[in-house]
Amino acid sequence: MQNIVQRLLDGDRRALARMITLIENEVPAAHRYLAELHRHAGRAHIIGVTGAPGAGKSTLVTQLVRELRQREHKIGVVAVDPSSPFTGGALLGDRIRMMELAGDPNVFIRSMASRGSSGGLASSTGDVVRAMDAAGFDPIIIETIGTGQAEVEVMHSAHTVLVVYAPGMGDEIQAIKAGILEIADIFVVSKADKPGADQAAAQLSMLLGLDPNRRKGPWRIPILKTSALKTQGIVEVVDAMQQHLTVLKESGMLAQRAQRQARSEVQALILHAVMQALKTRVSEDEWSALVEAITVGERDPYSVAGELLERIRLREE
Amino acid sequence: MQNIVQRLLDGDRRALARMITLIENEVPAAHRYLAELHRHAGRAHIIGVTGAPGAGKSTLVTQLVRELRQREHKIGVVAVDPSSPFTGGALLGDRIRMMELAGDPNVFIRSMASRGSSGGLASSTGDVVRAMDAAGFDPIIIETIGTGQAEVEVMHSAHTVLVVYAPGMGDEIQAIKAGILEIADIFVVSKADKPGADQAAAQLSMLLGLDPNRRKGPWRIPILKTSALKTQGIVEVVDAMQQHLTVLKESGMLAQRAQRQARSEVQALILHAVMQALKTRVSEDEWSALVEAITVGERDPYSVAGELLERIRLREE
Repeated sequence: MQNIVQRLLDGDRRALARMITLIENEVPAAHRYLAELHRHAGRAHIIGVTGAPGAGKSTLVTQLVRELRQREHKIGVVAVDPSSPFTGGALLGDRIRMMELAGDPNVFIRSMASRGSSGGLASSTGDVVRAMDAAGFDPIIIETIGTGQAEVEVMHSAHTVLVVYAPGMGDEIQAIKAGILEIADIFVVSKADKPGADQAAAQLSMLLGLDPNRRKGPWRIPILKTSALKTQGIVEVVDAMQQHLTVLKESGMLAQRAQRQARSEVQALILHAVMQALKTRVSEDEWSALVEAITVGERDPYSVAGELLERIRLREE
Repeated sequence: MQNIVQRLLDGDRRALARMITLIENEVPAAHRYLAELHRHAGRAHIIGVTGAPGAGKSTLVTQLVRELRQREHKIGVVAVDPSSPFTGGALLGDRIRMMELAGDPNVFIRSMASRGSSGGLASSTGDVVRAMDAAGFDPIIIETIGTGQAEVEVMHSAHTVLVVYAPGMGDEIQAIKAGILEIADIFVVSKADKPGADQAAAQLSMLLGLDPNRRKGPWRIPILKTSALKTQGIVEVVDAMQQHLTVLKESGMLAQRAQRQARSEVQALILHAVMQALKTRVSEDEWSALVEAITVGERDPYSVAGELLERIRLREE
């Protein structure tokens, strides 16, 4: 069983697939394997692709993968759907377009869905990216299905975030709603063959003009137009992704970001362990009784928290 | 020192002011006092008032307090500014209008500002509300200065959330940006004497029309217009607040909400204790060294998290 790590490092796709399943199922051994894989990871450029449903994210990802293959890259794709409790199924429709890529040994595609908290999904997405990274895939594209708080959290794993935006009313509202304007490093206006594309790009410029954060340090956030029909603009998007990585590296932002992320990952793992310990040691019945006692004023939240802290005895974990 | 609790319960304003300072300074004894106060709290109707800067929140709150005084209420106001590290100072301008109310023994106004995490501010706001509640203030109005993730978190303490919206372009975008449409129980279009007010109300209706959540269970979210100049609409807003509370009570939503909140408060207290333990036992230098070791691949986040969990020995807290 130990050699799953070695097989994965040797490029065995089935070992990688199996590792991802272990991560998704939160098998206790997964963290031990990931600890070993960590040493071999940290090399891949991680790209996030997000935007409202129907904005054309899957089409864009397919085109990006094709262009990156031309440039001799080995590409990992993680498609994340926080709104679906099922892995794979819900995404199948969108995935069909990517099937042509699935036979390519230099492309690895995996769908992930939520089971439980969005924080949990963000951390397991980070773990899946780590496994693909250790297996030699670079870049790794994380694609979300919709936009929301969970998607924004998932995007924290990415170095470069692409926000896809389709011409047509309502999209700008969707984009703002989820706070994804703030996390964008590159805007892509898709379906540029459609009539409203120039207007959409102009609208977006205006929105960005209102936003003092449209520059991120030394990086000026570009707005690029693409068209699936005319396979237009993809070269420019891939160039911008790579330029963004260069700027991150040269400015020292990549190193800072890695340190910030390492720290928040350690903290998240600790808090996750605490919540897990609570889950295993306090039954639902007991929770209900405690909560009832608090609401009627028999108990108070402070002493209950103190008592539960005693109980979880994290040292024995 | 123990009798600060008794004096607060007896209606001593200075004891309440002192208690709030203890809460803000995170004095260890504060939780012990709050545990006692908890038994006497849980009676007040907690009202949140939020909206973009300049939307007219302070004016509205002043008018609400005046109308509630007419109805023989004893009112607490907590003005929260997550963006400011200073208590009081930053809010002074806005507060001046409320000075007329400050001499009234049946009105208690307090400003709070962030020191550290937004989660911390949300929980200390909850504690301040608990102290005011135990001191017999009802309703208690929580007013935020701006709108953002921190403000949304703060609003979780409220039973009834008023979102204030001023006529004029850009506000609808502000409102959506922070996700505050989702948390609104009552919309108030302020400055109804201005030309754009009807249009603003219509725009808002349209936005709500797009949102399937415009009803919250048995409660239909109203859009009310007010004018500071004509002191118009305030009676209707206060009536709507009270109707909302009645609906919450009769539908059983108030009880459910109290239980949900008790549970999440206990969990937040536990996680806060864990973070505090980390802060006291792991120095910044050690964090830097650990994080550096992780980023260069010498260490991995999983084993570091495990080691720190061992170290914080929560049982001895």
